Amino acid sequence: MSRFDHRKYTPIQPIHKPDRRWPNRVIEAAPQWCSVDLRDGNQALIEPMSPEQKLEMFEMLVDVGFKQIEIGFPAASQTDFDFVRKLITEQRIPDDVTIQVLTQARKPLIERTYESLKGASRAIVHVYNSTSTVQREQVFKMSREQIKQIAVDGATWVGEGAARQPETDWQFQYSPESFTGTEVDYAVEVCNAVIDVWQPTSDKKCIINLPATVEVATPNVYADQIEWFCEQVSRRDSVIVSLHTHNDRGCGVAASELGVLAGADRVEGTLLGNGERTGNMDIVTMGMNMYSAGVDPELDFSHMDRIINVVEKCTQLKVHPRHPYAGELVFAAFSGSHQDAINKCLAQYQEGETWEVAYLPIDPRDLGRNYQQVIRINSQSGKGGVAYVLEQEHAIKMPRWLQVDFSPVVQVFAEDCESEVTADQIVSLFEKTYIEPDNAIALKSYQVNRESGLDAMQAVLVANHAEHPIQGEGRGVLEAFVSGLNRHTQHDIVIIEYDEHTLGHDDASEAIAYVQVSVNAQRVCGVGRSRDILGATFIAILNALARAENINAMRLSA
Amino acid sequence: MSRFDHRKYTPIQPIHKPDRRWPNRVIEAAPQWCSVDLRDGNQALIEPMSPEQKLEMFEMLVDVGFKQIEIGFPAASQTDFDFVRKLITEQRIPDDVTIQVLTQARKPLIERTYESLKGASRAIVHVYNSTSTVQREQVFKMSREQIKQIAVDGATWVGEGAARQPETDWQFQYSPESFTGTEVDYAVEVCNAVIDVWQPTSDKKCIINLPATVEVATPNVYADQIEWFCEQVSRRDSVIVSLHTHNDRGCGVAASELGVLAGADRVEGTLLGNGERTGNMDIVTMGMNMYSAGVDPELDFSHMDRIINVVEKCTQLKVHPRHPYAGELVFAAFSGSHQDAINKCLAQYQEGETWEVAYLPIDPRDLGRNYQQVIRINSQSGKGGVAYVLEQEHAIKMPRWLQVDFSPVVQVFAEDCESEVTADQIVSLFEKTYIEPDNAIALKSYQVNRESGLDAMQAVLVANHAEHPIQGEGRGVLEAFVSGLNRHTQHDIVIIEYDEHTLGHDDASEAIAYVQVSVNAQRVCGVGRSRDILGATFIAILNALARAENINAMRLSA
Repeated sequence: MSRFDHRKYTPIQPIHKPDRRWPNRVIEAAPQWCSVDLRDGNQALIEPMSPEQKLEMFEMLVDVGFKQIEIGFPAASQTDFDFVRKLITEQRIPDDVTIQVLTQARKPLIERTYESLKGASRAIVHVYNSTSTVQREQVFKMSREQIKQIAVDGATWVGEGAARQPETDWQFQYSPESFTGTEVDYAVEVCNAVIDVWQPTSDKKCIINLPATVEVATPNVYADQIEWFCEQVSRRDSVIVSLHTHNDRGCGVAASELGVLAGADRVEGTLLGNGERTGNMDIVTMGMNMYSAGVDPELDFSHMDRIINVVEKCTQLKVHPRHPYAGELVFAAFSGSHQDAINKCLAQYQEGETWEVAYLPIDPRDLGRNYQQVIRINSQSGKGGVAYVLEQEHAIKMPRWLQVDFSPVVQVFAEDCESEVTADQIVSLFEKTYIEPDNAIALKSYQVNRESGLDAMQAVLVANHAEHPIQGEGRGVLEAFVSGLNRHTQHDIVIIEYDEHTLGHDDASEAIAYVQVSVNAQRVCGVGRSRDILGATFIAILNALARAENINAMRLSA
Repeated sequence: MSRFDHRKYTPIQPIHKPDRRWPNRVIEAAPQWCSVDLRDGNQALIEPMSPEQKLEMFEMLVDVGFKQIEIGFPAASQTDFDFVRKLITEQRIPDDVTIQVLTQARKPLIERTYESLKGASRAIVHVYNSTSTVQREQVFKMSREQIKQIAVDGATWVGEGAARQPETDWQFQYSPESFTGTEVDYAVEVCNAVIDVWQPTSDKKCIINLPATVEVATPNVYADQIEWFCEQVSRRDSVIVSLHTHNDRGCGVAASELGVLAGADRVEGTLLGNGERTGNMDIVTMGMNMYSAGVDPELDFSHMDRIINVVEKCTQLKVHPRHPYAGELVFAAFSGSHQDAINKCLAQYQEGETWEVAYLPIDPRDLGRNYQQVIRINSQSGKGGVAYVLEQEHAIKMPRWLQVDFSPVVQVFAEDCESEVTADQIVSLFEKTYIEPDNAIALKSYQVNRESGLDAMQAVLVANHAEHPIQGEGRGVLEAFVSGLNRHTQHDIVIIEYDEHTLGHDDASEAIAYVQVSVNAQRVCGVGRSRDILGATFIAILNALARAENINAMRLSA
């Protein structure tokens, strides 16, 4: 017998709310955003972030424009505790950014939480307990009254802890965890009891966060719950209603969007949707959805490549090629009729006009992509054939992203040719494009030192017959090299893709390295060949840089 | 100046429909499903599917239970034309499955389309033209009347073509392409003109498909458009209203769900959401959403590993670890409190009862996953340390999915130990678990032949002192080996993950191979070591099989 049987699952239980108003609205302003990348996101990783990665993530979140950042669960994790201390004692929190920490509603944990926050100028203390039917009945085996008392006690201890540290400007937040699995009238009852403890005012609001800890219904049901909650909660004008959705049914973004229509003031989520199981709500997608509809998201995603780079490094999860706004394929058009329509629209588009281009919801250049990446070919004779030739004739195994990059180069060349393109022509086109670009920067020498986890690198580059010594440091040699290059050239180079292999099977074989880098938010590929893999990689980066400079007529600064 | 400026985009334009009824409804039955994997999905690939891959995809779609499958655009592509012919002439279309083909509304293309369908017992001819404002004004530079005439002419030619081949049972489908970019009253006007040509009846319905070719608004706006369309379209009881959403705003599933609430009868999409740009609507997610809410999706996703395997092979895109229902991490719980709650609920769950388990929207076993994969650890001392030890001491570079698999093994062992676990103990635990499992099946010899693309393989296995010769064929040696093993053992083995490397840097170095296979829908890992990489891989598969057999006390058949 198959186990596949839908009859063991409970139907969706919508609330009765025929007077709903949210579907008549349109989002016209950004909510307050709170990033939970360092907490909910970090908690869901196979390998949680190192302290260095946490700091890098925190700094990027600040740069993107987050004003509220949940940075950990300090009472549950020494790593998180230490990270909170580090940010505070090293004064790394900008004046306009508020850190937030999570704690369960237990007295020793709340005390430990306040200990971690000593000396903070401002902070949000976020206390939660589980209120859902399943948790009450199966996990805690407690009555509604008992569960409510946990929340009230937690709120009381949070208030007492704050009173003991009056030098900090405190804000309180409460989550009835598993809100979407909780009877909505009971959720209001618990939250109102917490609000009674905290006595917020319109000048000193508290945050009530309503998590879809597990997504259990179509997003309109969540919106109805939020609208009903907003109508029923006490002191509505002293409460910031916050959303925290997950993506179990693939509708986490939709649920938060409809929840904002339903009256919520604030949205928690992560960059590119990392988080427990299917992930948290993706703030990049929701923010860019606003942006593409003419609404200021109050977050800056223009350096999308850097966001992708840091998120991938910290989560060890690659962004999917079809991820909205961020994936490598999302601005690509393979269909001939799509390409044709895009070309016609672009030809008519004038800089500064309202954007109206078929098949392109936004201008890819806003996120550092260019039109060359939009129009791609996928005929059988295209990329596949080219990759085959290069591998057969020269043992060059192009990674897929390089095949995609090279494909339009071959296409343009083929259109210029009178006759069939030969294998030799493809090989020399590849070399001329990626390995020996015009104005190539040569690598004269390099030295690498590894000491206690940090790599230091010195190299001498040659451009236009002049030598350019560079030096850099980083976690890993590539990072060290790129940091040296960035410092010397004043560019912002980020490695997007990297691959390498040897070109033969004996010790004398050369190595070949392939990179895709983002140079000042413009993506460009390069290839390097050398006796050793490190040299090949450095050369590949330099070749990519030369290509970017040729495109933009930038020059290596002296 | 930054290019990042929301002001050049147009605000969402909702339609005025305060009398909407869809938010009061719940989905209670599956819509008609139509897979467009072989058309919209295939069109969006860097490397389109080969004829063999198309056939494998088609057969899987049939097995999953699709009754309508769009198999190509035969008038635009010779490959598609040949594939349509192959399915028809080789009689590969089951009696209860209807093929569908797409064509533009141009006479020669429609004629060529009917040519491809000669001899089909039943088929849907799907004709479309672009109706959106942008396409009318910028691409075609035509008036509303002219664009409507294209649709009417197309519908007429489609009707004429069908009349010339009366041996086939025809159904007609029309799409106003870019419906969501089209004024909804104009879309109704065009569709009604097409319906006037076709004169459908309640016995002989036509399909009107309303594509969100580009997703441009929150999903409630699409639902309002659908409900309004259903109210305004002529002969509603003779028309099947169909949805076709994309995922540009990450809400493709939500839009189709709300569209079904709004009255649509049919949904087009792809398995796991492959398709142009951000992808088509993911039918796996929408179907499993119904399933998890107690509604029969009328599709069978119980062999999820096979679905993932075929989709990844055909699209060359890996399923994201957080993809709803399918990703490797979506049933994982890393948080201690989540693990605790799951354990408590599972301890109380009785087979056959209604499923009520915190943090697990469905029973992972329904999709061939097991509970061992749910409870994972991610403490710094866990996996990271283990992987470090194995790499440092034995040059074993475990892929991440194997680290995840090994982590609970180490955890259980650590809990049984009185003292700290040593590096030697970890290494021998690894070897005992993956390289030398109980009842290991030995590889005595093997031969491989490659002829014209197909690999043939013969091997002699030894289990319980008895020799078992096996032979198999496949595209690639691994596929040949697995097919031989499946044939001999009557198991259903599918390779999920694969990695390998050499254990040193000279010619004498051994190779090591890591596999994760699904044996009869149960995932298990194995590792093999050998002088050559092929042997190591075969051994890894045999070790995984032995582990599955130990777990289930199955035995190699004689």
